[in-house]
Amino acid sequence: MTHITNTLTVQTQSHDYPIFIGASTAVQIDLASPILPFIKGKQVLIVTNTTIAPLYLTDLTKHLVAQGLMVESCVLPDGEQYKNQEYINTIYDVLMKNHFARDCTLIALGGGVIGDMTGFAAASFMRGVNFIQVPTTLLAQVDSSVGGKTGINHPLGKNMIGAFWQPVCVLADMTTFDTLPKREFAAGLAEVVKYALIFDKTFLDWLEVNAAKITARDGAILSELVYRCCDYKAKIVASDERESGVRALLNFGHTFGHVIETHMGYGNWLHGEAVAVGMVQAMMMSQKLGLIGEDEVARVVDLLQIFDLPVKPPYIEPSVALDLMGHDKKVQNGSIRLVLLKELGKAFVTKDFDMAMLTEVLNANH
Amino acid sequence: MTHITNTLTVQTQSHDYPIFIGASTAVQIDLASPILPFIKGKQVLIVTNTTIAPLYLTDLTKHLVAQGLMVESCVLPDGEQYKNQEYINTIYDVLMKNHFARDCTLIALGGGVIGDMTGFAAASFMRGVNFIQVPTTLLAQVDSSVGGKTGINHPLGKNMIGAFWQPVCVLADMTTFDTLPKREFAAGLAEVVKYALIFDKTFLDWLEVNAAKITARDGAILSELVYRCCDYKAKIVASDERESGVRALLNFGHTFGHVIETHMGYGNWLHGEAVAVGMVQAMMMSQKLGLIGEDEVARVVDLLQIFDLPVKPPYIEPSVALDLMGHDKKVQNGSIRLVLLKELGKAFVTKDFDMAMLTEVLNANH
Repeated sequence: MTHITNTLTVQTQSHDYPIFIGASTAVQIDLASPILPFIKGKQVLIVTNTTIAPLYLTDLTKHLVAQGLMVESCVLPDGEQYKNQEYINTIYDVLMKNHFARDCTLIALGGGVIGDMTGFAAASFMRGVNFIQVPTTLLAQVDSSVGGKTGINHPLGKNMIGAFWQPVCVLADMTTFDTLPKREFAAGLAEVVKYALIFDKTFLDWLEVNAAKITARDGAILSELVYRCCDYKAKIVASDERESGVRALLNFGHTFGHVIETHMGYGNWLHGEAVAVGMVQAMMMSQKLGLIGEDEVARVVDLLQIFDLPVKPPYIEPSVALDLMGHDKKVQNGSIRLVLLKELGKAFVTKDFDMAMLTEVLNANH
Repeated sequence: MTHITNTLTVQTQSHDYPIFIGASTAVQIDLASPILPFIKGKQVLIVTNTTIAPLYLTDLTKHLVAQGLMVESCVLPDGEQYKNQEYINTIYDVLMKNHFARDCTLIALGGGVIGDMTGFAAASFMRGVNFIQVPTTLLAQVDSSVGGKTGINHPLGKNMIGAFWQPVCVLADMTTFDTLPKREFAAGLAEVVKYALIFDKTFLDWLEVNAAKITARDGAILSELVYRCCDYKAKIVASDERESGVRALLNFGHTFGHVIETHMGYGNWLHGEAVAVGMVQAMMMSQKLGLIGEDEVARVVDLLQIFDLPVKPPYIEPSVALDLMGHDKKVQNGSIRLVLLKELGKAFVTKDFDMAMLTEVLNANH
């Protein structure tokens, strides 16, 4: 049995869907029962990867088969480098070879990469089929399972091919964190801290108070944490599904983080690690603009360190970093948009800062 | 200048869009001016094929460039066999190499294949960009430019990968028929007759009265014809965008036609030719069920022949045909759904007929 402690309803343009947050009460994890009512038709494809398959695939398949469902699986290699057309084709091939019809259901069992790929396969197979997310990483639970962004990478750019496609339900089971490596758990916490910094200072207080329980992966606390993060994101997405306005605030720390990820080569720094450092840099910018105090930056740096996250960037030549940020050399100031903090818990987007100041931040702290 | 004689507004779940129907008044065809107000951003990609490019690409590009737009083109080989992932990638590659941004516009200049591929590229590039259709075949104008179906083929099935993605406008210019081969023009007329048979007997009368002008490709009459067909389809699509109910009537003649297309090999029979014969077979079924008279079947057969369309199927062993129709041998009757006619101008979907009767129809008339 899975004990659902929180249910959140996400509103989207196409339909509303629930995120079930809970934990398995038995030794044997049961990822099937909460999602069963959302399976359409008799044909189910579980898409997962070589890391997650040995942990959960057999049990989930067994539970679904016991309900009379015809279950196939597609096990992809684990990693962002496989989030491409070649591997999305392996999903299509399984669907076609097994004569899947339009009333089938695709289940994403894994982290963000599996969610993105399965979602895009569901969006594009027969022009759109039923899709359920079972995110097994903290990052996927608090970030990519809300918002409907799906897609794959193009050799010349990340996430360039995709669709907005909403799941019919999401199951975030805290028990899956038992098998999540420490570094990946920490990377997920970077996005958690981000929500606090851009939306809600009281959540920052809560994270500090509960930091020890969080790093000890206390199920009840994590359940509350995931609920709060999904709630922040769901509210943003509901007001801005196709990403024209306020959703941009979710990029806090990401412009700086992108520089680190790209320059260091994808996979060397985890996305969340780069975002953690990027948030520190964005706070330093905010501090230089007189918006937040040095003590506030220090407070967040402390929390990130408790969460085992890096807070200092690797050395990257500022001119290289500015190029990666898309700086237009013909424009002195105003060619780069940054998400900065007005205060802890309030973010805004601005182009109104001095390039010299940005260069100082890029030069500092490594 | 293009003289727009009719404008039809198509209502969809995502947005309403106009279909402009008209003809160029100058010797030099101008496909740019009606669509200009619908171009978003400064980056435009025209997708076309090797048959259409020499006819219209240079002029359209010149007109758009004259408006200060940055125009790229992607010329695909002509044919259904290229409607696949390999060639959709050539579209993505042009977009990526030329740094297209989310506020770009894709223009489909060609027939149904180009429309389907460009539409799917527009649906999936950066999770969806602006899309304009300039259909240059009768079939594309009366059928595939309304409804938002886009996609490509999978090696194991047609149109298996795709999306519903609506254009922001469609330009149906009658002048483009001047360069359309006779056989393709006739194939388009099969779908035209289909609308009359399933929705509107008065349109059948109109087609008979105007048959000579239609085959002579009289611009004013064709403009009226395209308007009427798009209007029928738009009304169906508005009430059933995701194809759950009444939209199934549009498959009249297609279940029988599919057998011919598949058995004879794609490309040997044009889709419209197979549909013409399929409609005759569906009418023979309707006649055997006592719904329409022999004279009514003969009347439609006459019209199809005036339109240079085939009315007799090639010989296909009935058991092979039934297999291709998806007949389940374990079920005596009721495993195949057919669209039949209650009367001329009224169609319905049924499983309620005797398999022996269907076998007779499949055996007849070749």
